Amino acid sequence: MADQYAQTGEDKRPTDIPALRWEEPPEGPVLVLLDQTRLPAEEVELVCTDAPALVEAIRSLAVRGAPLLGIAGAYGVALAAVRGYDVDDAANALAGARPTAVNLAVGVRRAHAAYRAALADGGGAPRAAEAALAAARALHREDAEASARMAAHGLALLDELLPGGGHRVLTHCNTGSLVSGGEGTAFAVALAAHRAGRLRRLWVDETRPLLQGARLTAYEAARNGMAYTLLADNAAGSLFAAGEVDAVLIGADRIAADGSVANKVGSYPLAVLARYHHVPFIVVAPVTTLDPDTPDGAAIEVEQRPGYEVTEISVPQVPVTGAGGGVPIAPLGTQAYNPAFDVTPPELVTAIVTEEGVVSPVTAQALAGLGAGAPRRGAAG
Amino acid sequence: MADQYAQTGEDKRPTDIPALRWEEPPEGPVLVLLDQTRLPAEEVELVCTDAPALVEAIRSLAVRGAPLLGIAGAYGVALAAVRGYDVDDAANALAGARPTAVNLAVGVRRAHAAYRAALADGGGAPRAAEAALAAARALHREDAEASARMAAHGLALLDELLPGGGHRVLTHCNTGSLVSGGEGTAFAVALAAHRAGRLRRLWVDETRPLLQGARLTAYEAARNGMAYTLLADNAAGSLFAAGEVDAVLIGADRIAADGSVANKVGSYPLAVLARYHHVPFIVVAPVTTLDPDTPDGAAIEVEQRPGYEVTEISVPQVPVTGAGGGVPIAPLGTQAYNPAFDVTPPELVTAIVTEEGVVSPVTAQALAGLGAGAPRRGAAG
Repeated sequence: MADQYAQTGEDKRPTDIPALRWEEPPEGPVLVLLDQTRLPAEEVELVCTDAPALVEAIRSLAVRGAPLLGIAGAYGVALAAVRGYDVDDAANALAGARPTAVNLAVGVRRAHAAYRAALADGGGAPRAAEAALAAARALHREDAEASARMAAHGLALLDELLPGGGHRVLTHCNTGSLVSGGEGTAFAVALAAHRAGRLRRLWVDETRPLLQGARLTAYEAARNGMAYTLLADNAAGSLFAAGEVDAVLIGADRIAADGSVANKVGSYPLAVLARYHHVPFIVVAPVTTLDPDTPDGAAIEVEQRPGYEVTEISVPQVPVTGAGGGVPIAPLGTQAYNPAFDVTPPELVTAIVTEEGVVSPVTAQALAGLGAGAPRRGAAG
Repeated sequence: MADQYAQTGEDKRPTDIPALRWEEPPEGPVLVLLDQTRLPAEEVELVCTDAPALVEAIRSLAVRGAPLLGIAGAYGVALAAVRGYDVDDAANALAGARPTAVNLAVGVRRAHAAYRAALADGGGAPRAAEAALAAARALHREDAEASARMAAHGLALLDELLPGGGHRVLTHCNTGSLVSGGEGTAFAVALAAHRAGRLRRLWVDETRPLLQGARLTAYEAARNGMAYTLLADNAAGSLFAAGEVDAVLIGADRIAADGSVANKVGSYPLAVLARYHHVPFIVVAPVTTLDPDTPDGAAIEVEQRPGYEVTEISVPQVPVTGAGGGVPIAPLGTQAYNPAFDVTPPELVTAIVTEEGVVSPVTAQALAGLGAGAPRRGAAG
C-alpha cells in the first residue's frame, strides 16, 4: 500500500530528499521513495508498506535507475520479511518487476539469500528478517562507496583522455543521486569534474520518451550549480558536428560478458555518433551491472514499454485525457515502437568505469576479472 | 489579421482540408491556412488577410515545410498587392520570416519580380497584383507537379536500390501534403510505394522538439491508410541495429551547392546511423531547394529557435502555464540548445531525388546541372 504526501511547495528551495530511505515509524517499517515521476515540478514522497506497492513503484518508474533498483529490491525483500509477508513471493515479484536492469535481481537475491541463510542457521523468522535488512543496508552503503570510487576513476580517465581540461560532457538519461545510494554513476563523474573546476559544460539529452534528462538530470545539475544545457536528443548530432562534445558519459542497466552495454534507448545512436566524430564514449557502472550469465548483446532482453509513452505526453500538472494517462500527441490508434533500452556493442565503448577501476579496451577477458569479491547472483549477503 | 474557425469536430472523419488555399470572398481575398500547430487534435483554419498575419503564421509554424513556405510566401506578396498594401515591405518581411528554408525567399522573390515587371510594363497596380497572383498560382501548380515527379523518381530509385520490394522506410519530420502544393517530397515517395503495394512499413520519427512526426506525419499516414509505426527519435538506432530499416527518406530545407543538406534537426544523426549500417539515405526535394549561392554546409545559416520549445511541451489541449505557452518539463531557468535544423554533408547522402531526376553520387557538378530551366532568385515568374 502506498501513501503520498507533498514534501515541498513550489516556492521553497530544493530540499535534499534522498531517492530512497528505510524508516521505522511506530506503525511499522516502511520504504520511503522520492516519486521520480513527479519531478521536477513537485517533490513528493511515496511510502511503501509492502512489496506489491514497491513493485508498482518500480513499474511506474517512481523509483528507477539500475543501482537504486538493486537497493530498492533488497529493501523490498527486507520489508516483506520484517512485516511477516511471504518472502519468497515478494522476492519473485520484485526480481521480475523490470527485466533489463540486472542490479534489481542481484539486489533482491542478495537480501533473499541472507534471509534464507539465517533461516537455515535456525535463527527463526525475526533473525532472518534482520539479516535481510542488514544485507539491504550493506548494499546501500556499498553502492554509495562505489559511487565515490567510480567518480574518482572516471575523473582521472577524463583528465587522461582530455588533458586540456574544461571538459564538455554529453550525458543521456539520469545517472545521479536519484539512481544511487550515493552520487550515481556517469553523473557522479561529471559532478566530480565540476567540483574540481574542470567541467566546462554538461550537455543534457532530454531523453525521450520519458524525459529523464529534462526532468531529472537537469534537476540534479541545477541543484549542484553545474553549467548545464538541455537539448532535444535530435540536437546531439549538431553538437558533435560543431566539435562541442569532448566525451560522452552514460550509465548502464546491464553489461553482458562480452562488454555489450544495455542502457536507456538513445545510447547506441550516441555511441555511433561518438565513433564517427572520434569522441570517447564512456560507460560508468558498478560491477553489479556486469552480468556474466548474459554472454553478449543479442542475449540481453530489452524491455518493451507501452506505446502510450510515445503517443502521449505525461506531465504531472496536466489532467489525464489519454488511455495512458497523458495528453495524446499522435492520432488516435497510432501504434508505437517503444524499447526502453538499446544495446551498444563493446567495439563502440571506449571504456567502462567501475568502482574497481577502468576497463579499456573493453574485452570479455578484462571484464571477467572484475567483481570477483562482490556478491553475485545467489551468493549470500 | 487572422481569424480562426474550427472546421471539424472530433467525431467526424478527417476531411481533406488543403494545407493552404487562396479564396476570394466578398470581403476581399484571403489566404486560408490549415493551422498545423493544432494538428492532429483539431483541424482549424487560419485566415490571413495581410502579410503580417502570414509572417506570424510562418514564425509560429502554423504553416511550415520548405516547398509550402515558398508557395505561402508568393501568395503573401500577391495578398499585399491585391489588397493595396506596400508590396516591397511585405516581400521583405515575408522573405525574412524564417532564415533557413531557401524556398520561402525564392517564392517571395518570384511573385515580387512578377509584380515589379508588370509595373515596369506600365500596367498599373491592379495588373501588377494580377501578375503576382498568377506567379503564386503557377508556383503552386508547379509544386504539385514536382511532387508527382519526385514520387515517381523516388519510387524507381527505391525499387532499384531494394529489389526485394516490401520497403521498410524510416522518415523524419513531416514532408507530405502539409508541406506542399501536392503530396510532398519524401512522404510522397513513401505514399507512391504504398499505392504500388511495396511499402511494408513507414517508421515515423516523432521529431522532437515540435513533434511534427507524431502530430503531422502520423496524421498523414493514417489518412492514407499506410502501415506506419511511431517511435521516439532515440529508438531509430535500435531499428537500424535490428536490420528493420531498408532506407531513410527525408526532405530538405536548403541544399548548398556542394550537396550539403540542411533539414530538420535529427536528420544528420540518422545519416550517420544509416552510413554505419549501410542503409541508403535519400533526400527528396524540389530543385527550388537547391541554393547555388550557398557554397557549402558551413555557409548555411541554421535557425536557432527559442529554448522553451525544449524546456516546455506544447500541446493544444493544455492550458498555458509556462513562459513559452507550454507545460514546463525541466526545472525553471534551464537553458536549452535548440537548433531547428542540422546539416548533412554530401558524402553521407546516397541520393538527392528532385522532380528533374535522381542525383547520385551527390556532387557539386551533378547538382549544378539541375534547375536550369526553373525560375531562380530574382528571375521573373
